[in-house]
Amino acid sequence: MTVSREVELAGHIIDSGTMGTAFSIVMDMGGSFTVEAFDIGRRKEEESYARLLVEADDTETLQSIVHELHQHGANPADPTDATLERAPADRVVPDGFYSTTNHPTFVRYEDEWLPVENMEMDCAIVVEPEPSSDGSDGPRAYTKVLNAIEAGDRVVTGDTGIRVEPPERPRDSGGTFGFMQGGVSAERPSESTIRQIADAMRETSESGGDVLAVCGPALIHSGAREDLARLVREGHIDMLSAGNGFAVHDIERDLYGTSLGVDTETLDHARHGHKHHIYAISEVIREGGIEAAVESGTIESGVMYECVANDRPFVLAGSIRDDGPLPDTITDAVEAQNAIRAQAHEADMVLMLSTLLHSVAVGNCLPSTTPVVCVDISPATVTQLVDRGSAQAVGMVTDIGTFVPLLAEELVEE
Amino acid sequence: MTVSREVELAGHIIDSGTMGTAFSIVMDMGGSFTVEAFDIGRRKEEESYARLLVEADDTETLQSIVHELHQHGANPADPTDATLERAPADRVVPDGFYSTTNHPTFVRYEDEWLPVENMEMDCAIVVEPEPSSDGSDGPRAYTKVLNAIEAGDRVVTGDTGIRVEPPERPRDSGGTFGFMQGGVSAERPSESTIRQIADAMRETSESGGDVLAVCGPALIHSGAREDLARLVREGHIDMLSAGNGFAVHDIERDLYGTSLGVDTETLDHARHGHKHHIYAISEVIREGGIEAAVESGTIESGVMYECVANDRPFVLAGSIRDDGPLPDTITDAVEAQNAIRAQAHEADMVLMLSTLLHSVAVGNCLPSTTPVVCVDISPATVTQLVDRGSAQAVGMVTDIGTFVPLLAEELVEE
Amino acid sequence: MTVSREVELAGHIIDSGTMGTAFSIVMDMGGSFTVEAFDIGRRKEEESYARLLVEADDTETLQSIVHELHQHGANPADPTDATLERAPADRVVPDGFYSTTNHPTFVRYEDEWLPVENMEMDCAIVVEPEPSSDGSDGPRAYTKVLNAIEAGDRVVTGDTGIRVEPPERPRDSGGTFGFMQGGVSAERPSESTIRQIADAMRETSESGGDVLAVCGPALIHSGAREDLARLVREGHIDMLSAGNGFAVHDIERDLYGTSLGVDTETLDHARHGHKHHIYAISEVIREGGIEAAVESGTIESGVMYECVANDRPFVLAGSIRDDGPLPDTITDAVEAQNAIRAQAHEADMVLMLSTLLHSVAVGNCLPSTTPVVCVDISPATVTQLVDRGSAQAVGMVTDIGTFVPLLAEELVEE
Amino acid sequence: MTVSREVELAGHIIDSGTMGTAFSIVMDMGGSFTVEAFDIGRRKEEESYARLLVEADDTETLQSIVHELHQHGANPADPTDATLERAPADRVVPDGFYSTTNHPTFVRYEDEWLPVENMEMDCAIVVEPEPSSDGSDGPRAYTKVLNAIEAGDRVVTGDTGIRVEPPERPRDSGGTFGFMQGGVSAERPSESTIRQIADAMRETSESGGDVLAVCGPALIHSGAREDLARLVREGHIDMLSAGNGFAVHDIERDLYGTSLGVDTETLDHARHGHKHHIYAISEVIREGGIEAAVESGTIESGVMYECVANDRPFVLAGSIRDDGPLPDTITDAVEAQNAIRAQAHEADMVLMLSTLLHSVAVGNCLPSTTPVVCVDISPATVTQLVDRGSAQAVGMVTDIGTFVPLLAEELVEE
Repeated sequence: MTVSREVELAGHIIDSGTMGTAFSIVMDMGGSFTVEAFDIGRRKEEESYARLLVEADDTETLQSIVHELHQHGANPADPTDATLERAPADRVVPDGFYSTTNHPTFVRYEDEWLPVENMEMDCAIVVEPEPSSDGSDGPRAYTKVLNAIEAGDRVVTGDTGIRVEPPERPRDSGGTFGFMQGGVSAERPSESTIRQIADAMRETSESGGDVLAVCGPALIHSGAREDLARLVREGHIDMLSAGNGFAVHDIERDLYGTSLGVDTETLDHARHGHKHHIYAISEVIREGGIEAAVESGTIESGVMYECVANDRPFVLAGSIRDDGPLPDTITDAVEAQNAIRAQAHEADMVLMLSTLLHSVAVGNCLPSTTPVVCVDISPATVTQLVDRGSAQAVGMVTDIGTFVPLLAEELVEE
Repeated sequence: MTVSREVELAGHIIDSGTMGTAFSIVMDMGGSFTVEAFDIGRRKEEESYARLLVEADDTETLQSIVHELHQHGANPADPTDATLERAPADRVVPDGFYSTTNHPTFVRYEDEWLPVENMEMDCAIVVEPEPSSDGSDGPRAYTKVLNAIEAGDRVVTGDTGIRVEPPERPRDSGGTFGFMQGGVSAERPSESTIRQIADAMRETSESGGDVLAVCGPALIHSGAREDLARLVREGHIDMLSAGNGFAVHDIERDLYGTSLGVDTETLDHARHGHKHHIYAISEVIREGGIEAAVESGTIESGVMYECVANDRPFVLAGSIRDDGPLPDTITDAVEAQNAIRAQAHEADMVLMLSTLLHSVAVGNCLPSTTPVVCVDISPATVTQLVDRGSAQAVGMVTDIGTFVPLLAEELVEE
Repeated sequence: MTVSREVELAGHIIDSGTMGTAFSIVMDMGGSFTVEAFDIGRRKEEESYARLLVEADDTETLQSIVHELHQHGANPADPTDATLERAPADRVVPDGFYSTTNHPTFVRYEDEWLPVENMEMDCAIVVEPEPSSDGSDGPRAYTKVLNAIEAGDRVVTGDTGIRVEPPERPRDSGGTFGFMQGGVSAERPSESTIRQIADAMRETSESGGDVLAVCGPALIHSGAREDLARLVREGHIDMLSAGNGFAVHDIERDLYGTSLGVDTETLDHARHGHKHHIYAISEVIREGGIEAAVESGTIESGVMYECVANDRPFVLAGSIRDDGPLPDTITDAVEAQNAIRAQAHEADMVLMLSTLLHSVAVGNCLPSTTPVVCVDISPATVTQLVDRGSAQAVGMVTDIGTFVPLLAEELVEE
Repeated sequence: MTVSREVELAGHIIDSGTMGTAFSIVMDMGGSFTVEAFDIGRRKEEESYARLLVEADDTETLQSIVHELHQHGANPADPTDATLERAPADRVVPDGFYSTTNHPTFVRYEDEWLPVENMEMDCAIVVEPEPSSDGSDGPRAYTKVLNAIEAGDRVVTGDTGIRVEPPERPRDSGGTFGFMQGGVSAERPSESTIRQIADAMRETSESGGDVLAVCGPALIHSGAREDLARLVREGHIDMLSAGNGFAVHDIERDLYGTSLGVDTETLDHARHGHKHHIYAISEVIREGGIEAAVESGTIESGVMYECVANDRPFVLAGSIRDDGPLPDTITDAVEAQNAIRAQAHEADMVLMLSTLLHSVAVGNCLPSTTPVVCVDISPATVTQLVDRGSAQAVGMVTDIGTFVPLLAEELVEE
């Protein structure tokens, strides 16, 4: 027995690779295809359209192929409404729920395509019919992570009535974000790449967008703290996501002039220096938190200081390797993820600076359309982040301790 | 003005490097020394003794030098009782509290040296006079992390009345743990090293000790799951410390035959495979937890299964990059640290397998006397773990997917 | 002014990405295109055909685009004979000579397409009209590296009359070499991957092909020597390419039981061990070479021994970091490249084992159609080799000291 | 039977670790020791002296221990003249020849200690009685690599009459080269470290010393070429050691504005760019060499240009992965090593910049007293170089593309 289904592809499907990917998926998964219609975009501005008849030996295989195809932008040609099922209990999704990609997605509800809000991957999609709870007029669809599902939520199941639109290759290699097609390279010219990152940040700011910096403690150890603080102060970085360690070492440097006990200016090991981070934590606990310690004049400089002084929101997410932690650190992982998620959805550009853990956490919450720059000295880290990241992710393998000063030199007006 | 203080060193202070380190510290920190007494161990079994008069230009410098010296095992020659001060509030330590190393430490209280219990680094030391709260007869000293400090705790401050005893170089390079002097090498013969690790595990078990394995998800992706499960089942691994991701991928493999959507036997990408980890989480949530899912017959094999079936305690510590998480995952970082701490203090040998985050968390809670084996494919990870780790830490840069099968071959009786 | 040229693509140009790449090249380089004809393969066995009119603002841009296109398999639609010019002097190519890719290439000569022999990249193509110097009947085309060019050679210049055929995606993901589409992954299941490499080696041997192993000294230090020697002895490895260091440490192990002074069985540091490699070199010099030392009974075991005893040809290429070197080591880089080239052209499958330098040297001489397996513990090394390598290159990030024993277990009959 | 021998240690043997190392060696190798005399330096300026009686069960063990001890600076207490034996043939050393360390070494000849000239490791020592062939008055001792040994050379054998003096820990952590005690760290403050390297270079120049830069092609790809050229032009770098690839890409950038086909300013992929390096080679071959190409005006800028224009000697050593090569490249490894050796012996400070192969080759020829700075983005490379390197080696894990510009900013007068 042979079963079949029609799927459609539209857009710049040749050079964005969508069409090639679709052919490969069908072949890899043991199906076959017939191109029923193909209308090629004859010039670079013209879109192409293809309709494929996909065939397989059994229904299960066909479903798998169609499912996979549509994760990559080949959507069933005969859309019907998405199937909705009620969540049977809190945190329990219905069987066969649809798990999201990070690409822009649409759900068909009462013959209309609803854009899914707050796209991020590995979520369920919940549909709310009108009048929706937030007072908006029409029906809404949005993502929910598993542990946020509430009993009775209408959750999308199966593959029907869902359209995924992976970002396409830009028509034009220029433009500020044009360089963000390049993946990772350790052998890219460093200064020129930094210049382009600065341009993209400037353009984001000028168009009213927000730049989120995800920061690891290596920024402080490597001596980049002062220039990072300048970028926060002067508004080139609008939000900060970090862990307890980053804030501790930033504050240690303010209170004791060291980072992990090393004077980052003279390179001297401070006396008693290896205790400084514990003392710094203890001081902030005594004050009741970072903001209080800034206001009392205990903390007088640094990245956290500039965040408080200039009202740049920050999230400090806890982890099991933390000392302390600081009172500001959110120790519950689920609560921390929610704070990260809220920031990520606000961000128009994300810099991931020398932290794998926090970068993955932020990256998990980003749609594939948010531009991301990953900077780390380890090629494995950069590759991992760029691979799972957005379609507009660019990686740079460099030393954060030289990167930030050169970036600040580009951005900060003398 | 010159101020001075006498310090003493005793033991195998030449070849363990203690004496050389002491000289270097004084010189680096701007002091000077006179060797007032030196009695060299004339043969390898004989211990040496040295008394140094340390001089500096001012009291602050002298204190710094003496502090640093005694972190490395050179203790003041004129011991008096340790200074105790009451913690002013919960989580707030007195000014100038003593922050611990991970070496065996003693505190002088009423002219007696009390051994400090539950040694781990970056803690405060709390002294409880008799009768102690746990019903024991005498006074006790033990470590407390900052966030566990309670108002009124008697906390050790300053450097007086504290003795640190860094482990010495063994007199004998043989013995099962003899190979654990070797640090990290990527160019060590792999099979011979695995044989020695197996010997050390066997010896630990035979002497009634407990082996704790700290496990990262790469163990599952790399195909080592079945052999790791055998090691748990047959009692070569007594306790497990891992994150949500490890358990999810282990269970995904049981439920769907895949890890991250890849069939680890045939290497085929399963259809719908990239959803499997989310589905696995959803199934376990539905059951109420891993133990329930094992008992209901939903989970029938794997590492977590063997832990439940054979009563091997496990800790799953949450992190901000988790999907789900599973109901068994401890999402609060402080609570998770406490669970990790309890396990770490029980462990007589620790294997750190392909996870930096969890290995650092466990390592933070270990005294320098617990033997540790770190295995990872990244030399940077192994170096970082061995450097901060115990005096008996050995690192092996290898592929966990070939390491575990070869280790199991050595340990498991046919 | 607008200039234009027609190019053609044929084959499985959708899923092999050729067509998408062609579109991207034109757009990236500032041109435009019109699809004049497009005949899509409607089923997976059917080939597609496209004819594009490429336009640019000036001749230079157009030439650049067409040049780039044809490196990727889009060939001018109106073939004329290739242009040949005489080399003006030894080692001097004519201006504008055509520099090769590593893909199968054809040159048009007197209206016939001649396949270019000994394809490798970065070479010139020389055409010899009949009767050719090797006694064959017809005209021939073959590659020559720059330093082999002789005055008077007929060298292909420009882009005209040249056809490049990059390998296509196989129609079928099965087959022994099917797994060789997967690029590099550190998270692939190790044992299953080793099994597939063993299958590919066995299939190569069974079909009469030759397996070339490129070997670094880490093979010896990591304890893989004995299993590698078995693979040579039993005919699973037919040829060997290595450096002076590999042979020295292999022979050191035979003469003194150590590698870099370490006993690879007991892990003891041999006394005087750090001199052993120098002594080993000195012994072989005294004998006059490896073969003489095997015949005299001085060398009795190991990889080099098995090569000599079983007539497996080997090339030892010298480098500036060599001690000695051994009399067998070819110290001149150009002469060594010629020896490597001859071996590479014979090889039907290549294993690159823990050496970047020698693997790059061999890889430079391989056409894109030779299957290559790269094994190294450094992901950066594996990525670099797979990226520049053949279309059938697969990389495995693992420990060579566990890889070779497990590979031998798969291949060697008990 | 017990055999014994006395050895002596003198100097700052406690804090330089010499004494601890000696104790460890005896214990590790199965011997025992008695400290017969010990005179401790009571203050930091005073040297210590120890005499040990080393005992072992048999002569062979004793010899091994004594041999190992004296490689680490513990010398036999009863010096007699070194044993000299004639080399039986060219390239053939006498049995039991002494293989050198890279530490300052003295040979006892007719009751006098001759300093060994041109110290480097893994060499033989040749003694020439007076009148020596170079017209000097007295007898001389110097190193010879194995392949330079000539029949009849008087070669030192055994361990008698040889004194090794490993460098001691400086008395003073200040001084420009003081920071060179720190080994490798990826978490050191980058800008401060660069400042200290600049200071050390300036100090070397001001005291009339020569700075040798060992350069890999990544310098060019990463965009550091112009700043490196400035450092050469302005005399901060006096000599250059590199490979064919470095010079090719430097010249490619001059001729075509690209490096590996990428414009290092605009990051555009140049059209035809991947051919540029081959064309660059071809141009230089046509001119007859780099100097000729500079003089003819073909090459007008860059690192090689500045070397020629400012008379900075350079060595280009060939390797088996070279394209071309350029006429200036020394293709024979032994000949290239001799050129490298001559440069290395002249150097007063060495910068190893992003090349493992050439850095190892240069490092092999350096005595342990030459300060070395290793800069690479790979921690494994830096560790390997620092470990085998001089006692005054410091490693920095950073991006060469940001390191050189920041170094130039420190050194070059505006």
